Amino acid sequence: MTLKHIDHIHKVKKAEYKQQIEELALRLGEAQRKCKDLGIPVIILFEGWSASGKGSRIRTLIRSLDPRGFEVFTVHRPSEDELMRPYMWRFWKRTPPKGKIHVFDRSWYRALMRGHDKNEIKLAKPVHDVLSFEKTLTDSGVVIIKLFLHVSMKEQRKRLSALADSPETSWRINEDDWIQNCRYDEVSARYSKMINDCSHDSAKWTIVEADNGRYADIKVHTTVLEAMEKAISKSENGRKKENNEIKLPVGINQTSALTAVNLHRSLEREEYSERLSAVQSELSRMHNEMYLHRVPMAIVFEGWDAAGKGGAIKRLVAPFDPRGYKVAPYGAPNDIEKAHNYLWRFWNEVPKAGHLTVYDRSWYGRVMVERVEGFCSDDDWKRAFAEINEFEKQLVDSGMILLKFWLHIDQDEQLKRFEFRQNTPEKEWKITDEDWRNREKWDKYLEAVDEMLLRTSTKYAPWTIVEAVDKLYARVKVIETVHDCLENGLKAVRK
Amino acid sequence: MTLKHIDHIHKVKKAEYKQQIEELALRLGEAQRKCKDLGIPVIILFEGWSASGKGSRIRTLIRSLDPRGFEVFTVHRPSEDELMRPYMWRFWKRTPPKGKIHVFDRSWYRALMRGHDKNEIKLAKPVHDVLSFEKTLTDSGVVIIKLFLHVSMKEQRKRLSALADSPETSWRINEDDWIQNCRYDEVSARYSKMINDCSHDSAKWTIVEADNGRYADIKVHTTVLEAMEKAISKSENGRKKENNEIKLPVGINQTSALTAVNLHRSLEREEYSERLSAVQSELSRMHNEMYLHRVPMAIVFEGWDAAGKGGAIKRLVAPFDPRGYKVAPYGAPNDIEKAHNYLWRFWNEVPKAGHLTVYDRSWYGRVMVERVEGFCSDDDWKRAFAEINEFEKQLVDSGMILLKFWLHIDQDEQLKRFEFRQNTPEKEWKITDEDWRNREKWDKYLEAVDEMLLRTSTKYAPWTIVEAVDKLYARVKVIETVHDCLENGLKAVRK
Repeated sequence: MTLKHIDHIHKVKKAEYKQQIEELALRLGEAQRKCKDLGIPVIILFEGWSASGKGSRIRTLIRSLDPRGFEVFTVHRPSEDELMRPYMWRFWKRTPPKGKIHVFDRSWYRALMRGHDKNEIKLAKPVHDVLSFEKTLTDSGVVIIKLFLHVSMKEQRKRLSALADSPETSWRINEDDWIQNCRYDEVSARYSKMINDCSHDSAKWTIVEADNGRYADIKVHTTVLEAMEKAISKSENGRKKENNEIKLPVGINQTSALTAVNLHRSLEREEYSERLSAVQSELSRMHNEMYLHRVPMAIVFEGWDAAGKGGAIKRLVAPFDPRGYKVAPYGAPNDIEKAHNYLWRFWNEVPKAGHLTVYDRSWYGRVMVERVEGFCSDDDWKRAFAEINEFEKQLVDSGMILLKFWLHIDQDEQLKRFEFRQNTPEKEWKITDEDWRNREKWDKYLEAVDEMLLRTSTKYAPWTIVEAVDKLYARVKVIETVHDCLENGLKAVRK
Repeated sequence: MTLKHIDHIHKVKKAEYKQQIEELALRLGEAQRKCKDLGIPVIILFEGWSASGKGSRIRTLIRSLDPRGFEVFTVHRPSEDELMRPYMWRFWKRTPPKGKIHVFDRSWYRALMRGHDKNEIKLAKPVHDVLSFEKTLTDSGVVIIKLFLHVSMKEQRKRLSALADSPETSWRINEDDWIQNCRYDEVSARYSKMINDCSHDSAKWTIVEADNGRYADIKVHTTVLEAMEKAISKSENGRKKENNEIKLPVGINQTSALTAVNLHRSLEREEYSERLSAVQSELSRMHNEMYLHRVPMAIVFEGWDAAGKGGAIKRLVAPFDPRGYKVAPYGAPNDIEKAHNYLWRFWNEVPKAGHLTVYDRSWYGRVMVERVEGFCSDDDWKRAFAEINEFEKQLVDSGMILLKFWLHIDQDEQLKRFEFRQNTPEKEWKITDEDWRNREKWDKYLEAVDEMLLRTSTKYAPWTIVEAVDKLYARVKVIETVHDCLENGLKAVRK
């Protein structure tokens, strides 16, 4: 497909237009209500040439919608705050919850629409990253409707001139818009490539011939309506199991990564104190450097209940300036978090340049607690391995240092700690009935953890298994590992 | 109180320090858990001289806290996005929900700590506005602990020199810090004034002598602990009704503002169409101007169920560019909203410069549905009139155009509309059991609405009562009123 051969001669008479839009609006209102009831999130995204009428098309479209159920987002150049985070951060923050429609005036395609501007867009493989973002969303039930408003060179020139001639609108256009018109063919080729590269099964581009506004309105309405109605009928028919159940490849090494762990490693208190305070004072210095060089770092803590995550985190962050880090604890998701993709609440806390986020439990909940307790479907957690690897790849590609710790103890040690907590008044609050219940499912969790370690230990974000029966040993291992990785990361940017 | 006479000679031995901090940390952990259980939100705020050790004090303090229950916020110069909104916006966004501790490294006192920088701080009466913000929070149960770290001129100079001399920290200080030291007495007088002006009963300043870090740590811990324990015991004793029930002044004119309303005003469809399209095209032009001149506007819609809010909003926003406005519909608060002060969710949607927010229902829920249904205490809604007036004053003072519409119909008309909805398949979704239940309490609501109109019709934000039995009349009145107010507002900035 190239934009070159798109026919622009579409005229619609006013009376016909009015009648058609009215009918479409009624059906769209109905579809919106059904999506709300069924909990279907919808993204409607407008891209296109300058002056192709995105604003006007959006205006007509939203007139047909109940304002209680949609929101319009305009994507400008990123703010300072957004520039300090991975490119996709601001889009993840704005994904719709269940039953809501989010309309985007321009979008994550900014990275592909604008060829240049490397300062702004730090995406290693823009096409790949954008598609993986969309796939994660559509796989979890989001409807994505992508509309490209296409105007001819002649029409664009006419519109730019009209805008420039009026004092009320001349500020709306700038040099870039004129350059686009002058280099129409070249830009057109770029857009065509983007549209071809980024049309996948679950989120195809629709080209809207936009020389004629009325025609464009009708095509926008029709496209949106069709996509929503399709999603509704699919959902009403109980998302009939198409015969494509996810089959994970068999692991090369199916023996447990955890059985090999030597849990007896330990440390004398004296050595512990020495090594701890040495590495802490190093880290304190390095935190300054990290801030100066704008290196972001994320550290994930997972592990058995009572494995000592809290204590390790406490010693780890002690040398850091509190203005530069954040511990983000994650329990069961709240109502709002439940209405979003499971990755959403973790994206929200992604550290900005120069800062550290410590994730006390993380997105790995998807393949552990959610898997074991059946809080998500089998397909959901099976898909999650690839989604998580993609997510972490994006973080690392954006320049982030990413570390993942699994704090490992055995069942006996856990029992000892549970009992100690239960019998110590000032520790009793730390133990709950749920902890005891989880403990009974130890084997199921073990299976899940093993598979998690196998499938999500990547070159760019490997797991570090921490032998945690001896707390002193565990803490020092965690902090020294962080130190070494940070040192490596800083080496790379110091030059 | 002046800072001049504060004694700086406090030394604490290391062993004594360690022991004291350990004890205090235990008690603080306990207090944190109790605050969590009792749903008490806590703000701990650090202000003080440059290099007075805020970072170090915060670091020690949070070591004593469970990371799952607190968050640290560093207040820098405002971002672009923050500059486009009222000064208090970014602080309102960061108020703690029930049971959480928010630690601020610098705070809303920025407006008073820095005498200059009028571009950044648009507060009409900084002292008043800051106090009113704090009062609204403490009245709703937030504990605010304000710590001022005070160092002597000599000590400050020593610290600045040390920071400047090390290549790892020299970037942390700048010219302003040195100027502060050179003009120590002058700045000291300004700070003293601020501390005196802003110490009210429910949120006093504590001056922490900070030349000696250990002493300061202990004083910080002690102050925080005392404040939290006081709040806990108050809460555990069921917030014993002190004998200061809020008594509202009797209204001068207690006759209902609504009985005088002539509900029979109406408009022929022809006149309606003409006037509507004339004012819409005017508004479309003015929206550009509003954007250009960076004028923000907020429009509140309240009214009886089925009074026609939705239809009026639809016609009102039709001429606006969707990139420049947002309709924010408010129903019952969700979990997260419930954990915050009732104004919080409305602050979140405050329009930025050049933008419009349409509030479909609003903060007036506090004095209507929450009052009538008993969702808040009598004191809560009685206090709300003043809080709302303060809130709106801040918006208007920041340059915002604020409009409030009450769409008025009578009981008969409502019944007619309810029945029509019930009997029209494509309208049926609009009517719920709750609507019928609310209807039964018409008289109670009427009393509440009357009092609301009386107590919150201020010079800077008057109510417009819209006779809404005739929908055509109502819509035109709403839109023409918006037009006139916007025209007035633009006149003021055009010059």
